[in-house]
Amino acid sequence: MPQSKVIDIRGRKLGGETPLICSPLVGRTRERLLAETTNVAAKRPDVIEWRVDYFDAIGDQHAVVDTGRALRSLVGDTPVIFTRRSTSEGGEKIPLGDDDVVRLYAAVGAAGFVDFIDFEMSNDPDHVRQVRASTSAHGTRLILSYHNFGYTPGRDFLVQRFLEADRLGADVAKVATMPRDRHDVLALLAATAEADAKARVPLISMAMGPLGAVTRMVGGAFGSSLSFAIGEGSSAPGQIPIADLRAVYEVIGRARGGR
Amino acid sequence: MPQSKVIDIRGRKLGGETPLICSPLVGRTRERLLAETTNVAAKRPDVIEWRVDYFDAIGDQHAVVDTGRALRSLVGDTPVIFTRRSTSEGGEKIPLGDDDVVRLYAAVGAAGFVDFIDFEMSNDPDHVRQVRASTSAHGTRLILSYHNFGYTPGRDFLVQRFLEADRLGADVAKVATMPRDRHDVLALLAATAEADAKARVPLISMAMGPLGAVTRMVGGAFGSSLSFAIGEGSSAPGQIPIADLRAVYEVIGRARGGR
Repeated sequence: MPQSKVIDIRGRKLGGETPLICSPLVGRTRERLLAETTNVAAKRPDVIEWRVDYFDAIGDQHAVVDTGRALRSLVGDTPVIFTRRSTSEGGEKIPLGDDDVVRLYAAVGAAGFVDFIDFEMSNDPDHVRQVRASTSAHGTRLILSYHNFGYTPGRDFLVQRFLEADRLGADVAKVATMPRDRHDVLALLAATAEADAKARVPLISMAMGPLGAVTRMVGGAFGSSLSFAIGEGSSAPGQIPIADLRAVYEVIGRARGGR
Repeated sequence: MPQSKVIDIRGRKLGGETPLICSPLVGRTRERLLAETTNVAAKRPDVIEWRVDYFDAIGDQHAVVDTGRALRSLVGDTPVIFTRRSTSEGGEKIPLGDDDVVRLYAAVGAAGFVDFIDFEMSNDPDHVRQVRASTSAHGTRLILSYHNFGYTPGRDFLVQRFLEADRLGADVAKVATMPRDRHDVLALLAATAEADAKARVPLISMAMGPLGAVTRMVGGAFGSSLSFAIGEGSSAPGQIPIADLRAVYEVIGRARGGR
């Protein structure tokens, strides 16, 4: 990846030689979420993602912001991604409409405790523009994402998802798909490599499920700059524990230095 | 891989869920080779390959057979591959002509201390037939191989290398190439996956060098049934230490069991 694409966030380099390791938080109550945060932070992931669609009180903006501030105080300087994953792309059911989500994102951005906000690029274009505007206003980075839990579309379509995110103003473009066979896994990796040569922003990609798990390990060799790994709870099929992913990255790092 | 393709050799399954780990021996003298054998065997690779083109006394058939028997007594029941790699495919210079190599292979097969013999399918077709006949006569498995240390040919060509080995009567088909970029790495993996669906025999493949090192780790997910890893000395660029490769396989094994 060209060095110019690297995003330095609190000292972690998204787009550097080794992908960042990000652990999701999936606690449903404030108490469980903060206990999970403490336990996961102790495992020292590079990044933490709060999957707020798992949070029962997501409908209470004050509770979200207040809990988010408590979360920040527990993780110190670890970059945080704030994500409401939509049900159509693999998230939990929530009692909010899309307008409410955009307002929640704006409030969270304004509160200043998160570094990234993830929003599906399949959302209403007006909402994407609003989220881009509010994240820009607050200095929050925007991840525009595409998830397909059903299958893996063709390589060209996937390349276009990455490039569409870039065109829509994303700071980071993310694509995750479910492979049915080995060729789907390779299509996801090939699309990542092709898009990385064309996009102006760092990419995140993975093939999900047991079949795709190897992409979480070696995606960095094909242009993915972040990989999700289990701290305490999994947020998508195929994620492996932080310690396992770190062990693989250490092996890959040593191999990179080899002849 | 279809279960029918699995080769059970001294209890190790070539073509099973996890690739076998094979360490090369590259000692130049009998003394150094046998010391290396002891040290490498202690690291418990699944398979050992004697790269006899590194052996100074390769021209002395008696010395080769006698040293091979001593090697066998040191490795116990570990399967052994006997390989004279030709200079045109990355091997060391040797004082033997091709006819001599075919005779050496026949003598080694007759001596009964090796499980596999590796021969480049680019050799004279008569020699390939003679090696196939002598290995069959002695119950030795034949690996027919293709190596390209200069570049990675296109996917279709690589698929044909695997299938050509199969047609020539190989028990195992091996393809190794040098990638220049990410797309070459993916071409090697895609060719392996495609050939594995078509070939009647287990496959071995890898992209070499630092860029290809990840294929030595995740090739099993795409149809490669064996990966070379460093015991004491490396025989090709990009090989990683046995312990590192084993650690990655353990992570992949756990991920395979995941949801």
